[in-house]
Amino acid sequence: MLSTNKPAPKSKITKIVNARLLLDHKIVKDSYLWFQDGKIIHPQNLFFDQHRDADEIIDAQGMMVVPGYMDIQINGGYGIDFADHEGSLDKIQKDVDTVAKGLLQYGCTAFCPTVVSSAPEVYNKVLPLLNKRKGDAKGGSEILGAHIEGPFISHEKKGAHNQEIFRTGKRGIDEFDEAYGPELKKGSEAVSIITLAPEIEGVTEVIPELANRGICVSIGHSAATIDVAENAVAKGATLITHLFNAMLPFHHRDPGMIGVLGAVDLPAPVDPARHPSASNTSPDRTKPDPRPFYGLIVDGVHVHPNSVRIAYYAHPKGCVLVTDALSALGLPKGLYTLGGRELEIDDNGAAYIKGTNTLAGSTISIDQSVRNFRQFTKCTVVEAIEAATLHPAQVLGISDRKGTLNPGGDADLLFLNDDLEIQRVFVYGEEVELTKNKK
Amino acid sequence: MLSTNKPAPKSKITKIVNARLLLDHKIVKDSYLWFQDGKIIHPQNLFFDQHRDADEIIDAQGMMVVPGYMDIQINGGYGIDFADHEGSLDKIQKDVDTVAKGLLQYGCTAFCPTVVSSAPEVYNKVLPLLNKRKGDAKGGSEILGAHIEGPFISHEKKGAHNQEIFRTGKRGIDEFDEAYGPELKKGSEAVSIITLAPEIEGVTEVIPELANRGICVSIGHSAATIDVAENAVAKGATLITHLFNAMLPFHHRDPGMIGVLGAVDLPAPVDPARHPSASNTSPDRTKPDPRPFYGLIVDGVHVHPNSVRIAYYAHPKGCVLVTDALSALGLPKGLYTLGGRELEIDDNGAAYIKGTNTLAGSTISIDQSVRNFRQFTKCTVVEAIEAATLHPAQVLGISDRKGTLNPGGDADLLFLNDDLEIQRVFVYGEEVELTKNKK
Ligand SMILES: [Zn+2]
Ligand SMILES: [Zn+2]
Repeated sequence: MLSTNKPAPKSKITKIVNARLLLDHKIVKDSYLWFQDGKIIHPQNLFFDQHRDADEIIDAQGMMVVPGYMDIQINGGYGIDFADHEGSLDKIQKDVDTVAKGLLQYGCTAFCPTVVSSAPEVYNKVLPLLNKRKGDAKGGSEILGAHIEGPFISHEKKGAHNQEIFRTGKRGIDEFDEAYGPELKKGSEAVSIITLAPEIEGVTEVIPELANRGICVSIGHSAATIDVAENAVAKGATLITHLFNAMLPFHHRDPGMIGVLGAVDLPAPVDPARHPSASNTSPDRTKPDPRPFYGLIVDGVHVHPNSVRIAYYAHPKGCVLVTDALSALGLPKGLYTLGGRELEIDDNGAAYIKGTNTLAGSTISIDQSVRNFRQFTKCTVVEAIEAATLHPAQVLGISDRKGTLNPGGDADLLFLNDDLEIQRVFVYGEEVELTKNKK
Repeated sequence: MLSTNKPAPKSKITKIVNARLLLDHKIVKDSYLWFQDGKIIHPQNLFFDQHRDADEIIDAQGMMVVPGYMDIQINGGYGIDFADHEGSLDKIQKDVDTVAKGLLQYGCTAFCPTVVSSAPEVYNKVLPLLNKRKGDAKGGSEILGAHIEGPFISHEKKGAHNQEIFRTGKRGIDEFDEAYGPELKKGSEAVSIITLAPEIEGVTEVIPELANRGICVSIGHSAATIDVAENAVAKGATLITHLFNAMLPFHHRDPGMIGVLGAVDLPAPVDPARHPSASNTSPDRTKPDPRPFYGLIVDGVHVHPNSVRIAYYAHPKGCVLVTDALSALGLPKGLYTLGGRELEIDDNGAAYIKGTNTLAGSTISIDQSVRNFRQFTKCTVVEAIEAATLHPAQVLGISDRKGTLNPGGDADLLFLNDDLEIQRVFVYGEEVELTKNKK
């Protein structure tokens, strides 16, 4: 015996048994998962360091246990739009909490609240309420910092954004700091992603500075040609915002931003950890992929299922499912608003600017996105889930703690049946009370 | 001793030694290849059945030895256009021979002479001279039957075709037999591929009948939407003609013919042997792919290199390199003709209809296409070569005798250096005298 000292009392240890775990890109049958203090732990450390077994056993009954989903582009839900600045700070805070809480029902355990092009006073009021915030089974989905989309974007590809407040980057980073206010200086603590159009004057030049602040620079709402888009990636952009939507169509002689999925001559990434892993389609199949990630809206309306599939197989490790969901998420069809504009939701759940056929966002949930994605691409279960877990975590540079079930990570867990329907949800090891009917 | 009878004198047996053979989708070092009477033979049969060794040894000096290239879309070369019907039959025959001979210099050991939209009298005169014909090291590249492109194609996507002679299929197969004359009844003996636009009246309905004649039905020069294109494939079309060119651009909400590369719900192929093999992108990764093959012009002008790459990775086993080469192939830049129209060749070797920016075809050779393809996609050497050997053979249903180095196949061989430059060419086991400077 090495020691007769009893260890000090410790926090509860939970063990999940009889699970099919998503581990190392595989579904592993008859597996165990241990967690303590909201973190996944390595059982070996447990036995050797703590001399103890689990305090609680959860029987997964053969279900799949996978990391919680993350949504890096979501405008709101439950009648709430994150760009809405009417009302008191208290009211806005409550609204944010309402969405965060609602998202847990869809297995979305972490998200980037997305704010469409707004005036400085809106950012000043709203962004401080969207700073990073830990998830909680009762309090709501984790906030990963805001995704600010615009206003440094293209009039030509404005989508549902209000072009009257679009700006250029003529005066460099100062112009950005003016536009977004002091929150931008906090970097990824406040702003996790910024979507910009690299062809707008001065914008490409600012990319390295934004990336230096830990912010993921995403190109989108842009009429960039392939050369401009590749240059933006070379400068440090690591994401394409909702691929196919709000960009030049793919033309075979200038494939535009979509063509970046076929790029072979990009420089090696500055920060490989924030680039897609190597795949059989990588320019060098042994190294992190220099191509950016790309968000895909998988409601079957924004992007044709066949286009989803073509993009996916062209660059499988770069695919990130996003909902781009609007205030209407979680509500019946009808009239809603986005950044002050009226929207109509049709029978398919697609949102159009009222009276036009311009798509403005979706009302799809992230768990439905995963199911659609699998159906559209016929990819494996692991591939579908990683597009909503590992890949978004890599985009944000947080794959050491989110997006996998590796020891050391946050115990954000989903129990799924074989149809990828959510059965149970855990946030930092605490179970969420599901109000939706489980199937 | 089993027998004392001496075998009867046999034709010469040749053995290639010290080669890197392309066998079973791999480059196999220090390998041997045996051939006799123009056919690749299995050495085991040789020892056991014939009790003899090789009569001739060829030292490949460590070079790659691969199947001869096939080009299923080529309009001519050396100043000659296969749709040109001026002059006597003798003159036309000589012209065909000139091209066939010239193509051997590029490692193209078999081809489908391609005839653009023409009047019935042209087909009647020209097609009988383009029937299947065995290759010969002195006589020229093997003719695999004609590829007739049009006239059942779209005015909207006419490319360099003369739309005054376009037709519809209102009266079904009779209309086709009238258009092309008696050669069409011979099936693949005379016509290996027909390119048609499935949205033209009556055309889709005729596809099964053409396929029944052994003809590969290819969709192209078409404004087909994704639904129309998928329906044509369901009806038996197994190829897309020069993907990206002369079709609707890929739009994310209706990806058109290009979107067929993302199709998942196509019915199981009628003749799986004439469909692409399974890949990791197949709807069912264990079965022949129900998606069609697709031709790609890889001169870097017709299709942006990034687009080539996206298409390739979306459907790797379906990719078929074609040159779509014009009369100007093998000649300096200047003015040439295609189906009676004047063309200009620019510095990049791209051919435009005179005075316009409508692309009419290329002047690229098939061996240069293979090298470009490898550079554009960063695929492996095997993948690049199979896109010009195995895949076109599968398109035509002749992969039992062309497109691989399997025993029983025709001994059409190329010796390549590591830059994929042609060093030696064999047709049915006879060596071709190369006049180009080898590198
Ligand atoms: Zn957007
Ligand atoms: Zn053509």
